[in-house]
Amino acid sequence: MNSFGRKYRISIFGESHGDAVGVVIDGTPAGIALTEADFTADLDRRRSGAKGTTPRKESDAPHIVSGIYNGLTTGAPLTILFRNENTLSGDYRNLTDHPRPSHSDFVARVKYGGYNDPRGGGHFSGRITLGLVAAGVVAKKIIPDINIVARILEIGGCSENIAELIDGVIREQDSLGGVIECRAAGVPVGLGEPFFDSVESVLSHMLFSIPAIKGIEFGTGFGVARMRGSENNDAIIDPCGTTATNNGGGIAGGITNGNELVVRVAVKPTASISQGQQTYNFASNQVEELKIKGRHDACIALRAPVILEAATAIVLADFSLLNS
Amino acid sequence: MNSFGRKYRISIFGESHGDAVGVVIDGTPAGIALTEADFTADLDRRRSGAKGTTPRKESDAPHIVSGIYNGLTTGAPLTILFRNENTLSGDYRNLTDHPRPSHSDFVARVKYGGYNDPRGGGHFSGRITLGLVAAGVVAKKIIPDINIVARILEIGGCSENIAELIDGVIREQDSLGGVIECRAAGVPVGLGEPFFDSVESVLSHMLFSIPAIKGIEFGTGFGVARMRGSENNDAIIDPCGTTATNNGGGIAGGITNGNELVVRVAVKPTASISQGQQTYNFASNQVEELKIKGRHDACIALRAPVILEAATAIVLADFSLLNS
Amino acid sequence: MNSFGRKYRISIFGESHGDAVGVVIDGTPAGIALTEADFTADLDRRRSGAKGTTPRKESDAPHIVSGIYNGLTTGAPLTILFRNENTLSGDYRNLTDHPRPSHSDFVARVKYGGYNDPRGGGHFSGRITLGLVAAGVVAKKIIPDINIVARILEIGGCSENIAELIDGVIREQDSLGGVIECRAAGVPVGLGEPFFDSVESVLSHMLFSIPAIKGIEFGTGFGVARMRGSENNDAIIDPCGTTATNNGGGIAGGITNGNELVVRVAVKPTASISQGQQTYNFASNQVEELKIKGRHDACIALRAPVILEAATAIVLADFSLLNS
Amino acid sequence: MNSFGRKYRISIFGESHGDAVGVVIDGTPAGIALTEADFTADLDRRRSGAKGTTPRKESDAPHIVSGIYNGLTTGAPLTILFRNENTLSGDYRNLTDHPRPSHSDFVARVKYGGYNDPRGGGHFSGRITLGLVAAGVVAKKIIPDINIVARILEIGGCSENIAELIDGVIREQDSLGGVIECRAAGVPVGLGEPFFDSVESVLSHMLFSIPAIKGIEFGTGFGVARMRGSENNDAIIDPCGTTATNNGGGIAGGITNGNELVVRVAVKPTASISQGQQTYNFASNQVEELKIKGRHDACIALRAPVILEAATAIVLADFSLLNS
Repeated sequence: MNSFGRKYRISIFGESHGDAVGVVIDGTPAGIALTEADFTADLDRRRSGAKGTTPRKESDAPHIVSGIYNGLTTGAPLTILFRNENTLSGDYRNLTDHPRPSHSDFVARVKYGGYNDPRGGGHFSGRITLGLVAAGVVAKKIIPDINIVARILEIGGCSENIAELIDGVIREQDSLGGVIECRAAGVPVGLGEPFFDSVESVLSHMLFSIPAIKGIEFGTGFGVARMRGSENNDAIIDPCGTTATNNGGGIAGGITNGNELVVRVAVKPTASISQGQQTYNFASNQVEELKIKGRHDACIALRAPVILEAATAIVLADFSLLNS
Repeated sequence: MNSFGRKYRISIFGESHGDAVGVVIDGTPAGIALTEADFTADLDRRRSGAKGTTPRKESDAPHIVSGIYNGLTTGAPLTILFRNENTLSGDYRNLTDHPRPSHSDFVARVKYGGYNDPRGGGHFSGRITLGLVAAGVVAKKIIPDINIVARILEIGGCSENIAELIDGVIREQDSLGGVIECRAAGVPVGLGEPFFDSVESVLSHMLFSIPAIKGIEFGTGFGVARMRGSENNDAIIDPCGTTATNNGGGIAGGITNGNELVVRVAVKPTASISQGQQTYNFASNQVEELKIKGRHDACIALRAPVILEAATAIVLADFSLLNS
Repeated sequence: MNSFGRKYRISIFGESHGDAVGVVIDGTPAGIALTEADFTADLDRRRSGAKGTTPRKESDAPHIVSGIYNGLTTGAPLTILFRNENTLSGDYRNLTDHPRPSHSDFVARVKYGGYNDPRGGGHFSGRITLGLVAAGVVAKKIIPDINIVARILEIGGCSENIAELIDGVIREQDSLGGVIECRAAGVPVGLGEPFFDSVESVLSHMLFSIPAIKGIEFGTGFGVARMRGSENNDAIIDPCGTTATNNGGGIAGGITNGNELVVRVAVKPTASISQGQQTYNFASNQVEELKIKGRHDACIALRAPVILEAATAIVLADFSLLNS
Repeated sequence: MNSFGRKYRISIFGESHGDAVGVVIDGTPAGIALTEADFTADLDRRRSGAKGTTPRKESDAPHIVSGIYNGLTTGAPLTILFRNENTLSGDYRNLTDHPRPSHSDFVARVKYGGYNDPRGGGHFSGRITLGLVAAGVVAKKIIPDINIVARILEIGGCSENIAELIDGVIREQDSLGGVIECRAAGVPVGLGEPFFDSVESVLSHMLFSIPAIKGIEFGTGFGVARMRGSENNDAIIDPCGTTATNNGGGIAGGITNGNELVVRVAVKPTASISQGQQTYNFASNQVEELKIKGRHDACIALRAPVILEAATAIVLADFSLLNS
C-alpha cells in the first residue's frame, strides 16, 4: 500500500490535480533542526523547468503541518503538505474510456471500478514523488555521515549531446528514457537484514515504486552474468573491509560491506506522448487514435536523480535506525 | 527480517550445516490437497546433481510438521522441515578470520560479532531457498490458473554450448553467472497496489532476497532506457487489455494488466571458487591467499529457475489473496 | 507507532496546539460516497461543550485533502485534516520541568530528550482522537450491516445522578473516571484470525491506544473469573450460531461467533486537574506544588463513546476487508 | 495472523494432536547462551500434573532446530520444536458437527469450511502456548535487568482454599476461572511508542491472544473508573520518576515510567467440561446433549502464570530492542 519502512515509516497521499500531495513521516528522531527552507534545494532539483520537462509550473512550497516545535523535530509524526496550484483538469476527461498505452488508466479502471481520479494520473502521478523527496531530505539529516549522489548516465542510449536529442523528441512529440545511477559513500558495514530484508530487496522495493522504473541493478549488475567468479569476486584488502573491486556495489550477502553503495535504474520514456497512438477505446469498442492533451515531460529521467537519492536515503535511514 | 508477505506470509529458518532448514507458511486457505509428494518435482529441479552443481547430495525430503489434516490444508500455519544430512563442516572453520571475497563472511563477522554460524554459509546459505521452493509449491496451488515458467537465458554470456563452458570453469576452478527469465501467464488484471506495493516493488523485494541476484528487470527492462515512448508504449488492442507489444512485462502503473508477466534476473557467479584468491586475513592482519575447500556449485544459476518460479508464485499468491 | 491496520490502515498525526491534527486512511474501497458533512454527527458527539468537558471550543471542521473524486472514494489514500484554532499555548510552558502526575510529560521528557511539543500534551493529547473519529466514520460505511453503539455505563462509580456528581468535581477542581460499553450488532461469523490477531487482541490494541483507558473486558469480562464453566459457557441454540447467553461477548476462540460483540473499557479520571498537586520539579529538584493552568475536561469519559465506536468500526472494517 | 513483534518477532505453529507445536523466533541478538536445558524451569511451570490440570502428560522436551552455534545464539532465526506424544485423538471426532459451547469449534467450522483440525482444538489449543513460553525464556535473556513474576490472585472468586474449590468442581465435572497478576520490576523509562503502540496496546494484543483471557487491566485498572483524579494521579517523588502511588501500573501516556509494571488478566473457566451440555447439533439439526470426552484442565488459570510472564517478557524485549 502507500506506506513504507519499519522504524522510519512514511505514508504518502494525494493526487496530481486534487487539493494537495504530501507525506506523513513517522519515526524521525527528536531534536533534528528542520525548517521549510531545508526542502528547497532538493525540491528545486525535482521541479520541472529545464527543456524536456513539463511546462506545468508548481511552486512546490512545503508546509510542515505537524512534528516540529521550535524548529526541531519532536519525535511525533512529521506531516508535509504541498498544495496543487497549476492544474488544468479539463485535459483528462476521456482517459477512463480511452486509456493511454503503458499508463495506469486501464488497470485503474479495472482495479477501482472506474472510481479512481483520472486527472493527471491521479494518485498514480509522478507528482506523488514530492512526498518522497521531502522524506528524503529528512532522511539525509538522520544519516549525516552518508553522502548520496545520483546522476544521469544516459538518455535515449546516449551519454552525450542529450540536449539535441531532447530537442528532437520534443519536435516529434515523442519521449525518451534513460539510466540513472545513485552512489552512497560512507555507508557503515552491517546495514540490511538477512534474508528478505537484504539491502537489495528493500532498496529495490522502494525504487520500483517510483513510476517509470523498469530495471534495477547493483554494482556491476547484469554485467555479473557474463563474468567468472574470479573476476567478479571483490577481494578484501584492509581491515575495514575495503575491496579491490566493487562489483557487489557495496553489498555482500545482502548486507552493506562498507564500500560505496552503487545502484542503477532504467527509466522508461514518458508514456504520455502527444503524437497520435492507435489504442483501444472502451466507449466505441474499437482501436482508434488517441491524442493525449495535457502537459508532459518529454524525458522524466531528467527529474529522477533527486528522487533516487531520496529513496536511497529513506532506506538507509531506516536500516540505520533499526541497527542502532 | 526472515518473513515475507501480507496474507500469504512465510517465515524461513535454518542453517546449511545445522539440524534442518524449513519454512512456516501462514495464510494458506483451508481445504487445499497437499502431501509431501507434491513437493518432489520442484525440489528435484532445485537439487544438485547436474554438471556444474555441487557434489553435496541431500535427499531434501520434506516433512510437513503442521497445518495438514486428512491430506488437506487446515488454514493454520503450514510448517515444512528439511533435515540436513550430508554435512562436512570441517571445511569452514577458518572463514571467520579469512573471509571469502564477495561472500557474507565479513559482513556477518561485523554484524553478528562473530557469533554467526560459519559452516557452509550458515543462515546465508543458498540452502535456505529450500523453504522458498516449498512455499512456492503451495503458492502455485493457491493460484492454479496462473502458469509460471522460468528458464535459463544465458550462462556466462552465452546462450549455447553451455555444457562446454561449464566444463571449462570446473577445470579452471572458477564459476559462472547467468541470466534467468520467469514468465507468468494467466495473471488477472489488477494485482498489485499503488504506490509502494507495486508488483515490481514486491516481486523484486522477494527476488533480491535470493542469494546471488544482482539485477532485475521487467519486460524490456534496461532496454526501455534506449527507446522512445512511441516504441515502448504497449497499445491496447482488445477489451481484455491485451497489448500489441509487451514492453511493460505485464505491468502498467505497478499493477498487472493481464498480459504475460515477464521478469529477468542476473545471477552472479558463485562466490566460492576453488582457485586461490588474495584477500585479507584478520588473523594475520595481511592480504594472503585463501584456498576455499568444501563443495560448491560452479554455476548456481543452473539451479535458480525453480527458485524464481517459487518466488514469483509466492508474490502472486499473496497479491491474489489480498485482492479477493 | 502511529499507524494501525492491515488492509484498512490509518496513520494519525498532529499536535494539540500545532497547525492541525489529522489522519491518512489507506485501503478504503473505491466508490463509497463521502462528503465532509458525513463527519458532522460523530464529530459533534466528540466535541466538548457539555458540562464536564473542556471550555476549549474548536469547530473541528474536517477538510478532505485527498482520496475523493466526484464525491466518491477513489481507492487512493484519504487524508482528513482538522485545523487547530482555539489554542492558548502560554499555559503549558513549565510542564517539561514540572511534569503533571499521571500525564505523559515525564516520559516524553525522557523518551524525546525534552524535544517533544509540550503544548496541550502535544502529540499525546486526546485531540489526536479526532483522526480516529474521522476514520471511524469511513469505517462504518465499509461495514454498513454492522450497527455499533457505545454508551456510558457509569461515571465515578455511579450510573445515576451523573450531572450532580460532575458539578461536585468541577467545584472541587477534580476529575472523574467512568466505564463505557460498546456493542456491535450484525457482526458476521468468522472475523478475526488465530492466534495473535484474535478479535480481542486487535480490538484491545486499538482501544488501549485511546488515552486514559486502563482496562478492557469482553462479554462478562472479569466476571468470568468468578464463574464455573457450566455457567459461563454459551450454548448454541440455532444453526446461525446464536447462543443462549453471551458471556463471550460475541467472540469464541478469538473469532466472532455472530452474536453481539460486547466490550467495556475503564476510563481514568482526567489527569489534568486544577487543584494543587505535590509532585517533583526537575528545575528546583524537589517535590513542590504544581498548579495546572489551561482548560480541561473534568470527565473525559463523557466524550469517549463515539471514540470507542470509531475504534471498534475501524477494527471490524479491517477484519471484514481481510476476510473478503 | 500467527506472528507477533517488530524486532523480536515470533511465529507460532502446530496443532494439539499433530506432529508437533513450535515457534520461530526472529531478531534474537547474537551471542546469548542458550541450551535446551534453559527452557526446563518455565516449561515445567506450564506443564500439567497438579490437581485441576489435565491428565494428559507430555514431556514437552524442546528441540532447538536452528539459530544456535556452539551454545550461543547466532542472530539467525531460532526454531524450537515440541513433539506431541500423548495424543488420544479418537475423542474429538464429532465436535465439528456438535460444537462445544464457548469453544472454537463452531467458528472454525464456518471460517475454515470444516477443514480445520478438530483434534484437541487443533491450532486453537492451549498447547500452542508452549511456543510462547519458549519465546519467553529467550526474551527474558534479552532483558536480564527486568524481573517478571506472575501469580494467581484468585480462583473462582476466592483467594484461599483453592485446593478444596478445585476438588469440588472436579467432582461436579465443571471448571473454574481465575485472575492472574503479572508484575515486572526494573523496567526502564521510555518503552512503548505513541499512539497505537502504547505499552497497554501491544501488551494487551499479546495477552488477549492467549486462549481464555477475557479481561485485562493495568495498575488499578477498572478501579480507576470509580476514582477522582486527585486520588488516581501518581505524583512523582524523585528524579528517577518514582511515584508515590502506582495506579497507572508503571505506564503513563502509554510509555513505561520506570515504576513497576502491573497487569492483571481474567481467565475464563475451561470451556471443555465433562458434564452434559445442551447445545446445537448441526448433524441432527437440533439442540441436544453434548458429552465432551477427552482430558481437560478443570482450571486452566492454574497453568497461566508462566504464560503471562512469557508474554510480558516478549513484549518488553521487543520494545527494548526497538528502543536501543
